[in-house]
Amino acid sequence: MQEIRKSAKEKMKGYCRVCPVCNGKACAGEVPGMGGLGTGSAFVANMEALDAMRFNMKLVHNVKEPVTETEFLGLSLSMPLMAAPIGGVSFNMGGGVSEEDYIDAIVSGCKAKGLIGCTGDGVPPVIHEAGYAAIKKAGGHGIGFIKPWEEKEFFEKLEKAEATGASVFGVDIDAAGLVTLAKMGRPVTPMTVDDLSKVIKSTSMKFILKGVMTVHDALCAKEAGADAIVVSNHGGRVLDSTPGTAEVLPEIAEAVGGEMTILVDGGIRSGGDILKMLALGAHGVMIGRPFSIAAVGGLQQGVETYIETLHTQLVQAMVLTGTDNVNRVESGILR
Amino acid sequence: MQEIRKSAKEKMKGYCRVCPVCNGKACAGEVPGMGGLGTGSAFVANMEALDAMRFNMKLVHNVKEPVTETEFLGLSLSMPLMAAPIGGVSFNMGGGVSEEDYIDAIVSGCKAKGLIGCTGDGVPPVIHEAGYAAIKKAGGHGIGFIKPWEEKEFFEKLEKAEATGASVFGVDIDAAGLVTLAKMGRPVTPMTVDDLSKVIKSTSMKFILKGVMTVHDALCAKEAGADAIVVSNHGGRVLDSTPGTAEVLPEIAEAVGGEMTILVDGGIRSGGDILKMLALGAHGVMIGRPFSIAAVGGLQQGVETYIETLHTQLVQAMVLTGTDNVNRVESGILR
Amino acid sequence: MQEIRKSAKEKMKGYCRVCPVCNGKACAGEVPGMGGLGTGSAFVANMEALDAMRFNMKLVHNVKEPVTETEFLGLSLSMPLMAAPIGGVSFNMGGGVSEEDYIDAIVSGCKAKGLIGCTGDGVPPVIHEAGYAAIKKAGGHGIGFIKPWEEKEFFEKLEKAEATGASVFGVDIDAAGLVTLAKMGRPVTPMTVDDLSKVIKSTSMKFILKGVMTVHDALCAKEAGADAIVVSNHGGRVLDSTPGTAEVLPEIAEAVGGEMTILVDGGIRSGGDILKMLALGAHGVMIGRPFSIAAVGGLQQGVETYIETLHTQLVQAMVLTGTDNVNRVESGILR
Amino acid sequence: MQEIRKSAKEKMKGYCRVCPVCNGKACAGEVPGMGGLGTGSAFVANMEALDAMRFNMKLVHNVKEPVTETEFLGLSLSMPLMAAPIGGVSFNMGGGVSEEDYIDAIVSGCKAKGLIGCTGDGVPPVIHEAGYAAIKKAGGHGIGFIKPWEEKEFFEKLEKAEATGASVFGVDIDAAGLVTLAKMGRPVTPMTVDDLSKVIKSTSMKFILKGVMTVHDALCAKEAGADAIVVSNHGGRVLDSTPGTAEVLPEIAEAVGGEMTILVDGGIRSGGDILKMLALGAHGVMIGRPFSIAAVGGLQQGVETYIETLHTQLVQAMVLTGTDNVNRVESGILR
Repeated sequence: MQEIRKSAKEKMKGYCRVCPVCNGKACAGEVPGMGGLGTGSAFVANMEALDAMRFNMKLVHNVKEPVTETEFLGLSLSMPLMAAPIGGVSFNMGGGVSEEDYIDAIVSGCKAKGLIGCTGDGVPPVIHEAGYAAIKKAGGHGIGFIKPWEEKEFFEKLEKAEATGASVFGVDIDAAGLVTLAKMGRPVTPMTVDDLSKVIKSTSMKFILKGVMTVHDALCAKEAGADAIVVSNHGGRVLDSTPGTAEVLPEIAEAVGGEMTILVDGGIRSGGDILKMLALGAHGVMIGRPFSIAAVGGLQQGVETYIETLHTQLVQAMVLTGTDNVNRVESGILR
Repeated sequence: MQEIRKSAKEKMKGYCRVCPVCNGKACAGEVPGMGGLGTGSAFVANMEALDAMRFNMKLVHNVKEPVTETEFLGLSLSMPLMAAPIGGVSFNMGGGVSEEDYIDAIVSGCKAKGLIGCTGDGVPPVIHEAGYAAIKKAGGHGIGFIKPWEEKEFFEKLEKAEATGASVFGVDIDAAGLVTLAKMGRPVTPMTVDDLSKVIKSTSMKFILKGVMTVHDALCAKEAGADAIVVSNHGGRVLDSTPGTAEVLPEIAEAVGGEMTILVDGGIRSGGDILKMLALGAHGVMIGRPFSIAAVGGLQQGVETYIETLHTQLVQAMVLTGTDNVNRVESGILR
Repeated sequence: MQEIRKSAKEKMKGYCRVCPVCNGKACAGEVPGMGGLGTGSAFVANMEALDAMRFNMKLVHNVKEPVTETEFLGLSLSMPLMAAPIGGVSFNMGGGVSEEDYIDAIVSGCKAKGLIGCTGDGVPPVIHEAGYAAIKKAGGHGIGFIKPWEEKEFFEKLEKAEATGASVFGVDIDAAGLVTLAKMGRPVTPMTVDDLSKVIKSTSMKFILKGVMTVHDALCAKEAGADAIVVSNHGGRVLDSTPGTAEVLPEIAEAVGGEMTILVDGGIRSGGDILKMLALGAHGVMIGRPFSIAAVGGLQQGVETYIETLHTQLVQAMVLTGTDNVNRVESGILR
Repeated sequence: MQEIRKSAKEKMKGYCRVCPVCNGKACAGEVPGMGGLGTGSAFVANMEALDAMRFNMKLVHNVKEPVTETEFLGLSLSMPLMAAPIGGVSFNMGGGVSEEDYIDAIVSGCKAKGLIGCTGDGVPPVIHEAGYAAIKKAGGHGIGFIKPWEEKEFFEKLEKAEATGASVFGVDIDAAGLVTLAKMGRPVTPMTVDDLSKVIKSTSMKFILKGVMTVHDALCAKEAGADAIVVSNHGGRVLDSTPGTAEVLPEIAEAVGGEMTILVDGGIRSGGDILKMLALGAHGVMIGRPFSIAAVGGLQQGVETYIETLHTQLVQAMVLTGTDNVNRVESGILR
């Protein structure tokens, strides 16, 4: 990882400092870039909410080789983990690699390690086009995210997503406030339950709604028929002053966790963080910025190495808390 | 904004650092200057009280074009926002622009954008004279604030304020502790309910009492017949160790918000901060230092650009919390 | 004050940084020197406990010229304030002035401004000798503090204290843990109620017990017949990890405040801090390090200037909280 | 101590900064090295949990020469203190001294001062061999710790431990997550109650289980027949995000303190810290990193000097809290 990070630091100069701890402080306000919006407080809140969760270390038990495999959304995964949808390599990461090479590294690297990568969307067509190409190349093993554009653009992109062979797609509804898009004159908007229903009914793919931070929106997603939600504040890039996702996750999981797949992102950096989110009620997690750093710094190899690191850390955290299976994580492992 | 801030940074050198986040830390104790008094804790408390309020991000709804217009004190405003009364360009901001140019930029810039600017008062006559001239030039569209001087000076200034054609004026009673004034040998003092009544009855203009930090003073203002109060600790410049205004606002709004117009200032920097104050019970807000920076850095154009930025941010925060109208902000948008 | 502080900074180089805010952080662990013991946490705790107290700013009232004069221990004071007993100029402050000049500046400066200065004690005889000489020169207007030495030394020093013409003396019992003394091989020890009674009965002078941090010790002091106690952790110089004095003051004042004079020191830097301590139940306060800086930096003139600054600040804080008399401070002025 | 620390700073360059306050911040993530794992939060948590405990300073009493001697596990100790088992001088501390010299300094230094030193274990045989040699040289006055290896290696090492003449040994079960070992391909694993019972029954030596952070594991240790537990998170080196030991100690002591010897380590730096842990329910404490610094910096003399410092500080803290005996520490000395 040291070499990958060193390479990323050079390639992302001026866009990401590749800090020892990626916590949103140095890059506060850098949108475009890798930072959180405004004071950066929503990015920082993600870290702080996770840091506030602490493990009850437990060693007298017989868990030596815990199970990390899981299934949801019809997918079999080696860990309850996806690479979050991030695009815009040129304006957010400095363009040290091309959009195509970047997203292929994410999608192929995840696939090679038994995971699945998500692809992003944005104003320049290259973002979703490169993403769809990568998914198609991976035999449909990827999840394309579409922003909440106006109808025409939205459904055109949805059609293209279906053509990749993918079985799942998503909408990052939290992008409705993305400054970078507003500045480029391409409106994205909130959606009603009816809007969501219409989207869901129009396709046979499974649907993920990303950007849920309240029980209200989670219940709306369920009512509309979504298969999964991602508890997310868009990495703190759309609204300053939100709580951290780890803080709101438990109440959302309690409200709809029995009936939908609950994913979460925001500040997850290590295998221990993954385990915390599972203990708080998630079925799986997404990781964003660290995957970007791994992909820019080492392409597919970087992505795979980062996944290996996460796997080692996850297993270790499971052993040290006496957790034998990611599908049966007790909330009591957190103090 | 970048250019305006850069220009302000040069012109205010030695008086204001134009920090990335204007939070009262670097300038602690710089009175005169732009800082908070003593340890600067009251300025910092304003920021921290606002930062402690966090939004419930909500995206499943149909709010796409929220209403930001409002009316109070007989004024129609494009946003619930005023420029706070600040004067003393020479000794507080370095004198890079003249008092006249400064206050005209504030008053004219606000008017051009459908807002209203307040003008300050102080020992050198140029402060209130420049303010009144700017209001007169704007056809009375401005609010002159008078400090709580002894009777003769006070009523002379009030008479001049009436002559500007303005329909509203105010007293910043919190100035009773202003070090800069005490040092110049011009006493300003607290006022009783009777003192306030006398002032209010002496004129047909509407009256704003600025500097209310307790329910006690708010009830006194109501008893005296004030039309509005401003919850304010004078930007932390008169008494070290006060709470932040966002902390005391809810109890004051609950006590008198149904019967008087409640304004608030203190640490408001962005459109999101405006929305927070409305959710806490204010009808409108005042912003101080950032307007000064905008005016020194870019005169009327600077003021207008800053207002545009605030408007964009306010709309965005409203969309992302599902708030359709600034006159109907639910307290539940805050977590 | 700027010049006095600048001069002190030069004279105290290597011993005190004369920081903008004197908060115990830069000098943590510097004993001898001006710091707190160990991690410095007890010094810092004094500051933080005071900082946590915040004022309810109040301006609608008729308090324009509040009364700051008070009486206790048979003394008439222009403010409820004493200079705390500090000695050892050579090893704690760098020896930029002599012990004699230092303590004379404290005692004479306080007297000139209607206050009273305390003098310290220590291993080198020059400390108490210089102190007693200063008190004698001031016609007995000073308070000598004696450390809890073994009997012979203690009573010899008490006899000398009586000979100064003073009417009050004290024991800083908290010195029982003073590292600097232990290292010089001169034991100081805790005292029982009987030990204290014996001391009190042996003289006609009034007696102050300094170093009370618990209701237990306060009740013991009362039982022994002490006239006053000083709530003090010895500036954080004897035991790491104590609470701040402002935190324990209210419970001690409630237990014995009706029957003894309650003084307090620890982190008091401004007139506002004095007012806070009065609101928390003290009859008067002691200030230590800032008086040392003023005395080293400007001798008697420095001490007087600092007292004037404190008086201005105290009056201002009283006006801004509607407090008309230091002898009738309401706890409700604190939020 | 100054010289010893200076020497250690040179010898440990690149491995330990010998910071003024050893708090885990500068070395966060340095494993191997002296830091905490990952973000270093578990190391830092140890410090913060101790810092949060504050003393009720008490001086009116007759405790002048408090008793620090104690007995447990059949050992008579001059203080309730042991040197924690630490090994791997070459890869953790820079190899400025040899493993043999290092551990001999620990064991001999402790013995000379009436304490007992523990020895570590690890992949390179030199670690446990040097430790056992030191214990043998000290006539069995030392405690060897064995990691939870697979059976063959474990029982071979246990046999060797018995041959040293020691009467007590331990297992640091928390090492089951030690990254440094996993990377060297030598698995260490959690143990069940049965595993522990088997170990305990196989020897006549008394048994200490180190690495207990929950009541669950403490009850398991009791059930298995352990003589003592060490509340420990392995210095924050095995699992990021655990609570500090001082935080979990009280509940563990309450559950099993009447029936087993409770030891604790984690962030203990001074005599005051020792007293805090006793007040929280421990019978004795272990100190790790500071002993390493003392041993590397000054060998046996360094260890002895550090012990003397701790003794002075412990006595002082006992006097200043009115504690007459380490075997009767009241929880009420903490606020």
